Amino acid sequence: MDKYKKLKEEAYQANLEIPKQGLAIYTWGNVSAFDKYLGVFAIKPSGVAYDKLSLNDMVIIDLDGQKVDGKLNPSSDTPTHLQLYKQFSGINGICHTHSPYATAWAQAMKSIPLLGTTHADHLANPIICTKALSKEQVENGYEENTGILIYKTFKDPSSAQEILNVGPYPFREINPVQNPMVLVGGHGPFSWGKDALSSVYNARVLEEVAKMAMWVNSINPAFTQLPSHITKKHYDRKHGKNAYYGQE
Amino acid sequence: MDKYKKLKEEAYQANLEIPKQGLAIYTWGNVSAFDKYLGVFAIKPSGVAYDKLSLNDMVIIDLDGQKVDGKLNPSSDTPTHLQLYKQFSGINGICHTHSPYATAWAQAMKSIPLLGTTHADHLANPIICTKALSKEQVENGYEENTGILIYKTFKDPSSAQEILNVGPYPFREINPVQNPMVLVGGHGPFSWGKDALSSVYNARVLEEVAKMAMWVNSINPAFTQLPSHITKKHYDRKHGKNAYYGQE
Amino acid sequence: MDKYKKLKEEAYQANLEIPKQGLAIYTWGNVSAFDKYLGVFAIKPSGVAYDKLSLNDMVIIDLDGQKVDGKLNPSSDTPTHLQLYKQFSGINGICHTHSPYATAWAQAMKSIPLLGTTHADHLANPIICTKALSKEQVENGYEENTGILIYKTFKDPSSAQEILNVGPYPFREINPVQNPMVLVGGHGPFSWGKDALSSVYNARVLEEVAKMAMWVNSINPAFTQLPSHITKKHYDRKHGKNAYYGQE
Amino acid sequence: MDKYKKLKEEAYQANLEIPKQGLAIYTWGNVSAFDKYLGVFAIKPSGVAYDKLSLNDMVIIDLDGQKVDGKLNPSSDTPTHLQLYKQFSGINGICHTHSPYATAWAQAMKSIPLLGTTHADHLANPIICTKALSKEQVENGYEENTGILIYKTFKDPSSAQEILNVGPYPFREINPVQNPMVLVGGHGPFSWGKDALSSVYNARVLEEVAKMAMWVNSINPAFTQLPSHITKKHYDRKHGKNAYYGQE
Repeated sequence: MDKYKKLKEEAYQANLEIPKQGLAIYTWGNVSAFDKYLGVFAIKPSGVAYDKLSLNDMVIIDLDGQKVDGKLNPSSDTPTHLQLYKQFSGINGICHTHSPYATAWAQAMKSIPLLGTTHADHLANPIICTKALSKEQVENGYEENTGILIYKTFKDPSSAQEILNVGPYPFREINPVQNPMVLVGGHGPFSWGKDALSSVYNARVLEEVAKMAMWVNSINPAFTQLPSHITKKHYDRKHGKNAYYGQE
Repeated sequence: MDKYKKLKEEAYQANLEIPKQGLAIYTWGNVSAFDKYLGVFAIKPSGVAYDKLSLNDMVIIDLDGQKVDGKLNPSSDTPTHLQLYKQFSGINGICHTHSPYATAWAQAMKSIPLLGTTHADHLANPIICTKALSKEQVENGYEENTGILIYKTFKDPSSAQEILNVGPYPFREINPVQNPMVLVGGHGPFSWGKDALSSVYNARVLEEVAKMAMWVNSINPAFTQLPSHITKKHYDRKHGKNAYYGQE
Repeated sequence: MDKYKKLKEEAYQANLEIPKQGLAIYTWGNVSAFDKYLGVFAIKPSGVAYDKLSLNDMVIIDLDGQKVDGKLNPSSDTPTHLQLYKQFSGINGICHTHSPYATAWAQAMKSIPLLGTTHADHLANPIICTKALSKEQVENGYEENTGILIYKTFKDPSSAQEILNVGPYPFREINPVQNPMVLVGGHGPFSWGKDALSSVYNARVLEEVAKMAMWVNSINPAFTQLPSHITKKHYDRKHGKNAYYGQE
Repeated sequence: MDKYKKLKEEAYQANLEIPKQGLAIYTWGNVSAFDKYLGVFAIKPSGVAYDKLSLNDMVIIDLDGQKVDGKLNPSSDTPTHLQLYKQFSGINGICHTHSPYATAWAQAMKSIPLLGTTHADHLANPIICTKALSKEQVENGYEENTGILIYKTFKDPSSAQEILNVGPYPFREINPVQNPMVLVGGHGPFSWGKDALSSVYNARVLEEVAKMAMWVNSINPAFTQLPSHITKKHYDRKHGKNAYYGQE
């Protein structure tokens, strides 16, 4: 009996969701699923195409970053996942892709302004874009430092890249549970959630929001952000105390 | 025997048309079907994915906004649908989505200019974008006020957002039967029609027209609207007294 | 025995190619097939969706514009097809769609510059955009006048809309067999060819060329046209006297 | 027994990958597979649609450019493939398409800047765009000269088109094995690799990178290239001496 079977199954299904949602071609994305009681996460093996992937290819990693189960090498982004699980409590799934609209914003080095209710239905802040990593951060533990950079930017968003057409990030700290996505400057999106499938759902949300925001800029480069009384309403009706969206 | 069965079937089929036409991902859209003799409409339940939806999930709402049949919670946008059925006579289906091109225009806070015959084949005016709702409108009956805002903007289009590159809306009043679509500023599109499927058809028309208009602006930012002798001709050959498009 | 059966079959198959190539949604396009010996053409009936279309729905029209076979009303664009068959000798198929990239150029009122070999493989000139029709042309035989406008613009391209970023059309006359496509200003594309399927092929070529040209303008608004020694080479290696592309 | 069977099979499968990856419509692309021991390559026949193609249609060409097996005419681009096989040692597959994003950059006459890790995962330099061929180069062996132009531009990139928003190409020479793709100015992309399928993979990479770069320019026209400490890291973790991406 494999005590990791359920976790592998969760990670496996969520990885298959990446190409199904059009978020990555070839091997350009990975998802992990975390079990806080077992203290491990299951992650996609490195460089394996989605249509070649099988349940047992999933690799189990503990919180020291050690492989505890699986024959293949884990995703090269594994240390980034590890850092996020250690630093962001309450998240149990992480997704990384190179989905093109989100990646274009990351390459443009701009945080995504909060322009509409589609965005506000899912998070109540602009979507943050981190700085690019420094030479030192790249040379001494690149993937680990990517996770640390995300964490630190959430702690102090004044270090984030400017919001397009708006300016510096206006908050003191960002709650990662309420803002389950980020752009790593020059690289691409990471997203997370209460489980692995939720992290892919948030990756798809980010891609759609990034696409719309690019188009808004094309239609009206003098756009302004949506007033907070609307964005807060939309966020709260889905996620607030008195949420009334969906079935209980 | 379920006296609402036919209405539920109409709403159900029209909701399935949303993902088929690429107008929404996940649960990001809803359609209702109205029966004026029964004085009720059938609407999608809140937060249910299209591929999980079944005929009997449809919720029946009367003109007081009360649920008269169905186990699930209705779409959170139900009060918007209700207002539109009460205020716009002659419409029997309403569709709301976050289709990306139309939503980008709504987020850009611009009405869509009348640039070609594709647009004029379906409506003879620019596509109106309302203001964003005020703090008061959001806090005291947000969804209901969304419907009222649409209605009031059709009554007095001088309050609408400017038409891109053209200026203020040039008409005194807009006929909702002849102009079966609108953008709610900062939010997204609503459309309607003589039945539920027509409202989805009009949502698809709006998405195509919004896409083309964005591209026209990219090719030639100094574009002008099409002369009214052409737009009127196209509208009339399909919808006028002496229409000669289609089979009778 | 139906003497028009072969012609109907050709028109029917070519109409089905429209949605297959993504050139139109719903009923937004039509193809006809001409037989110069019989002196008639077969055309799509008006307002019938592609997936409802059957072989026997095709309508046969003679060169006086009279219906000689078929139960349904022909496409409302039939008089445009008729004019083109009468005025452009050597063409036996015509296609009209509202494909979005080509239509965006038509709405932008700009002729498409000759920017690359993809374009030059199929025609050696910019793709012409006509003026919009005048009030008089619209009110007295709109569809017929659309055909006449196309014909006259090919005879005298100095009346065409400017080529984006280039200027007025540089030729005295345009050969419709070597330039099998046009944009009608504010409306959309028409294309033609040696048979009905070729006209749809040319509609697809136009859509691809229009897309690329819009993107070139986005990447480099200071673009210039490709030198004629290259465009002529590409056209001639496929269509010239000593063509060496393809199998004989 | 056909001694070229394996090579034809490789070329055939790689050609089928072109439409599967959305890189060309109709007949607008071709792949060849090279066997350096046999001193020949297998290439797609000219003007044959992918869905009509069969294994035995592949044409075998030797290094003198002579057809040594096959009934059909080879791709008209055959002399370009031949030049690249002769001049670039270590490549065994070549792909040419008119994929729209890459072709738009080629038509815009701009080299593609190195903006992100998606690009750097596959090549560590900007993607070069050659000059357009001169009148003389076109008239005396156009396809052969296309190959020679690519080769010469890799030898001396100072002759390449400027990198968008960056300026002249900054290197003295470019290694074709590490930079397996190019844009021919005004024409479109060529790519290559260790085998025929790799050359199609690189064509798909180029298309995705070209798309993202166009979008970055739309979001932030003042973009800058990614620092080399990041791009080198990404290239090296996949392709360097101590690569740790993928399974060994």
